[in-house]
Amino acid sequence: MKKYVEVYDYFKKLIENGALKAGDRLPSIRNACNILSVSKTTVQNAYFDLLADGYIISVDKSGYYVTEQKSISEVKCEAKPERQILYDLKSGDADEESFDIKLWQRYIKSALRSQGRLLSYSEVQGEADLRQALSDYIREKRNVTASPDRIIVGAGVQWLLSVLCSLVKDRKTVSFPDKSFVQGMSLFEDYGYDVHTRYKDADIIYVSPSHMTAYGDVMPMKRRLELVDYSEKTGSIIIEDDFDSDFLYQSKPTPSLYALSANDNVVYMGSFSNVLIPGIRISYMVLTQELAKRFEASKHKFAQTASKTEQIALCQYIRDGHISSQTRKVRRHYTSKARLLFDNIKKEVPNAAVTLGDNGLRVLVSCDFSGEISDFEKNKISVSVIKFEDGKITLSLTPSAIKECDIPKAVVVLKSILN
Amino acid sequence: MKKYVEVYDYFKKLIENGALKAGDRLPSIRNACNILSVSKTTVQNAYFDLLADGYIISVDKSGYYVTEQKSISEVKCEAKPERQILYDLKSGDADEESFDIKLWQRYIKSALRSQGRLLSYSEVQGEADLRQALSDYIREKRNVTASPDRIIVGAGVQWLLSVLCSLVKDRKTVSFPDKSFVQGMSLFEDYGYDVHTRYKDADIIYVSPSHMTAYGDVMPMKRRLELVDYSEKTGSIIIEDDFDSDFLYQSKPTPSLYALSANDNVVYMGSFSNVLIPGIRISYMVLTQELAKRFEASKHKFAQTASKTEQIALCQYIRDGHISSQTRKVRRHYTSKARLLFDNIKKEVPNAAVTLGDNGLRVLVSCDFSGEISDFEKNKISVSVIKFEDGKITLSLTPSAIKECDIPKAVVVLKSILN
Repeated sequence: MKKYVEVYDYFKKLIENGALKAGDRLPSIRNACNILSVSKTTVQNAYFDLLADGYIISVDKSGYYVTEQKSISEVKCEAKPERQILYDLKSGDADEESFDIKLWQRYIKSALRSQGRLLSYSEVQGEADLRQALSDYIREKRNVTASPDRIIVGAGVQWLLSVLCSLVKDRKTVSFPDKSFVQGMSLFEDYGYDVHTRYKDADIIYVSPSHMTAYGDVMPMKRRLELVDYSEKTGSIIIEDDFDSDFLYQSKPTPSLYALSANDNVVYMGSFSNVLIPGIRISYMVLTQELAKRFEASKHKFAQTASKTEQIALCQYIRDGHISSQTRKVRRHYTSKARLLFDNIKKEVPNAAVTLGDNGLRVLVSCDFSGEISDFEKNKISVSVIKFEDGKITLSLTPSAIKECDIPKAVVVLKSILN
Repeated sequence: MKKYVEVYDYFKKLIENGALKAGDRLPSIRNACNILSVSKTTVQNAYFDLLADGYIISVDKSGYYVTEQKSISEVKCEAKPERQILYDLKSGDADEESFDIKLWQRYIKSALRSQGRLLSYSEVQGEADLRQALSDYIREKRNVTASPDRIIVGAGVQWLLSVLCSLVKDRKTVSFPDKSFVQGMSLFEDYGYDVHTRYKDADIIYVSPSHMTAYGDVMPMKRRLELVDYSEKTGSIIIEDDFDSDFLYQSKPTPSLYALSANDNVVYMGSFSNVLIPGIRISYMVLTQELAKRFEASKHKFAQTASKTEQIALCQYIRDGHISSQTRKVRRHYTSKARLLFDNIKKEVPNAAVTLGDNGLRVLVSCDFSGEISDFEKNKISVSVIKFEDGKITLSLTPSAIKECDIPKAVVVLKSILN
């Protein structure tokens, strides 16, 4: 065993058996060297790992102190003390079982080794090899054919939309048929657009065909063809945010608008937060040929926002085929949890109308309700309230973050609130 | 030694001694298992590391192939084949010697271990513990006193400016006295602002007191006081981008505008790309109390853009005091390179007027020039041309990316072009 691991274990044991209590100060690094007859580096490394694992904290100019030893995972979460939710049916966060974080960690570690690349700024448009991998991936997966020079990488869809806004200055109205994407709508408002929620009558139409509503309606084929037809006749730009398309319940996802359109008028967008881990911010958009030319001409106006390390890691992750297998795994997991939630509510809350969202990831519940919206948080359960009027409430429930074993318990709580 | 390391070494040796040549295909994973009598996982791990180290590439559905073995670092850079520059005096990229990438890698690895946090989306405003660490850091370092709830974290200054634009909708004119920050200027233009470059006469004034011009002028104390006074009288907002302040040549940096102002009208911004590694995109801004309230009220309009892993890593990196030591190291390195460049040009190109920029990081060269701007690239040297008219050229040279030993050679090339 390495020396510093021994030192780490030594202090860990003292903390765990209570010999060192919360608030106790550890010996200074110099003192620890003397006490344990080891080098300064050894102690530093050991303290570093104790810090990383939440056993101690470092206080500026004072030293190292033992933390409260509730459980390590709680200590880690100190950053979010406000969250007192036991049953999360709202956030869309991920659960531990669905994600192979270890695998992702390996790719990050590998990316960190490419020192030469990390020393320079990221390419404005996104790393070239990542764009090539994305180009291959969306061609195979969604029949979206676009060369890498039409792909822009960025930290999140909202940022990409702001780049787009800057490129299409001649347009005035935008439509967001799904009213729930507030971040997109307010961005266009800030850019001076007239924003409405009808399906047509707009220079730009933002749709998310696999996630049309908060509870996950999927746009039917007929509607897709109509929309493509409309945009071809009027010259409107369609922004197709392919959010959740990977997660469709049906075995065959419906074709992308991009693939359906014969003209150069669909901007295609995708994201990886929901198949990798939510903390990763890498999205991409495929510009039309016209807009790609404009981007090329005004490249100096933009800076890359996505982490270069994560771009390098994602590129290799995609090349090695992990996105597809990871997607299948997450989908299987999430849809089975949604099904379980659906079944449980049907059984426990028989007077409610329960629907499983089209995409199989969300459950919609409608019933009479005489309580208050704050009742949910008071009972430590978080839900999205879609509608609450005339004594009737409609909830959208997303069971991605909750553990499977907690679903029956969450439904018992729901039942007590709704009845 | 671990089994997979043996397999890794086995193939590495075959590649290095030429038994496996560029383009040769490696045995499939299954075949390699049989040949070497090891498990599938062992081969996979070995191939993974060969990939990571650039010895092989993986071709979709075909297999693993040996790469061109020029040198590993060249192979890694395949993503940027277009860059044929030998002497980089322009990019502001970092050099290997200045950055302790290994140290940063450790913090990233440690952050990757906090699984619980990585499974949820990042806080819109930035991770709470990072904001606390930033608050402590800027108070101590720049006398900027602001509670964490006034700090917004995001991927780059441009993104943060777009958040700011969204918060201050009632203002119409903005001034960018330093004309070189195109990304900022065009952003405000996109938001419908009237943008000019005078020092005053604006609702918002963007200044970068430690980097006032492309060659690094520092704003003198008198001018700082005047500006603060002006903004207090007129109610203008000052955006103080403290870019490069860490790098000031003088032993004592001049005080921040934020600290000089008694009123609530300075938005303070900072960034870490230049003290960590350029590929990291984490910046922050301190909002005025008024704007912080507006942000709180419109939080739902924004999404976090910075990588959560990197936010967690940076938080601990700051807490452990590495920013300060790293800054000192980088500054020492860069200013000594700038001084060397300055001395060499003075000696070799005696007819040029040479100045060392105020901040000690850039060198300004003016002289007669009868050639063309493309001459520089043709000679594989990159420079920023500040001005070229009437047979006279002015260059700004940034020696951060170039190796110390290459500076004399670069000056010989410069001399041949300029004479």
